[in-house]
Amino acid sequence: MNFLEERIRRDGIIKEGNVLKVDSFLNHQMDIGLFERMGEEFRRRFAEEKIDKILTIEASGIGIACIAARYFHVPVVFAKKSKSVNIEGEMYIAEVESFTHKCKNQVIVSRKFLSPGENILIIDDFLANGCALQGLISIVTEAGANVAGIGIAIEKGFQVGGRMIRNLGYHLESLAIIDEMDAESGKLVFREQ
Amino acid sequence: MNFLEERIRRDGIIKEGNVLKVDSFLNHQMDIGLFERMGEEFRRRFAEEKIDKILTIEASGIGIACIAARYFHVPVVFAKKSKSVNIEGEMYIAEVESFTHKCKNQVIVSRKFLSPGENILIIDDFLANGCALQGLISIVTEAGANVAGIGIAIEKGFQVGGRMIRNLGYHLESLAIIDEMDAESGKLVFREQ
Repeated sequence: MNFLEERIRRDGIIKEGNVLKVDSFLNHQMDIGLFERMGEEFRRRFAEEKIDKILTIEASGIGIACIAARYFHVPVVFAKKSKSVNIEGEMYIAEVESFTHKCKNQVIVSRKFLSPGENILIIDDFLANGCALQGLISIVTEAGANVAGIGIAIEKGFQVGGRMIRNLGYHLESLAIIDEMDAESGKLVFREQ
Repeated sequence: MNFLEERIRRDGIIKEGNVLKVDSFLNHQMDIGLFERMGEEFRRRFAEEKIDKILTIEASGIGIACIAARYFHVPVVFAKKSKSVNIEGEMYIAEVESFTHKCKNQVIVSRKFLSPGENILIIDDFLANGCALQGLISIVTEAGANVAGIGIAIEKGFQVGGRMIRNLGYHLESLAIIDEMDAESGKLVFREQ
């Protein structure tokens, strides 16, 4: 087990409906020391890739992406989930459906911050059915930029997102992949990597 | 002028309606090297305060808070702006009104992540009329925790938030305070600190 799998086993809480609560260290309270280890590990796994910029999505991707950016020495752009009156001018817009919130969101990135030919590392906290990720990929592609890699903290390997993204040929690295989880028995099986 | 004031003067864009766009380095694209200097400066300004935890609010406070946390060696909690099906159990809830979005939001923090007696540093990107900040202070107070300090990147000194918070006796530090701005002439006056 790696450091993140150990932490999930120790502090994660499995709930009915395939919900894994990791809010004590990942997506509500955030353990910055843990994020530093994740950033180092992303750097190691994407050592061969040229990365110009990190793209993430609000809200829980932002902390992981900002700490990871210290290891890549690049700026971070976060996609916004709703139109703000402070964003104007031309924007890239993709429709995404949220698993946890059971609603559709528009994901928005200002055109100023993604340029043709840039090599983008997409970072997010969770990958389940992959809808948010599809939105981010479609925005990078629309910008004429290159998806150099996709770094995820926790992938629900029993949902379709990861397989589909890998089938499409993207370099996807998930620090922990859960192949099985069960709220009643507390069973939690990580994929060997 | 300090490093943040210089950056605002160089890359900030003043718009009608007292809007200052800093989305190229602060709250859409994020310059992590700049955030590191801000984190160091917050550490210097709050050197006398014991800090156990940083509290911020999604989305644009998160990156600044996470990088700052590296200088305080504490975890970060971010308040959420809408109820998520992944949050359950008891929560602290405050109503806040957003200046930029012209709407009311509920600000929510899980009770698990704020404890009586904890010393909390609140960090956010902007302070204007102070509504978001009032919500965060009310949550910290409700938890029986202590507002050890409030660190803001950019304060609009011509709006009431900062004066009111200082009048209430809080230790508020804003890295840049704008006393005057004008979209037509491009005039931008920072308060001497």
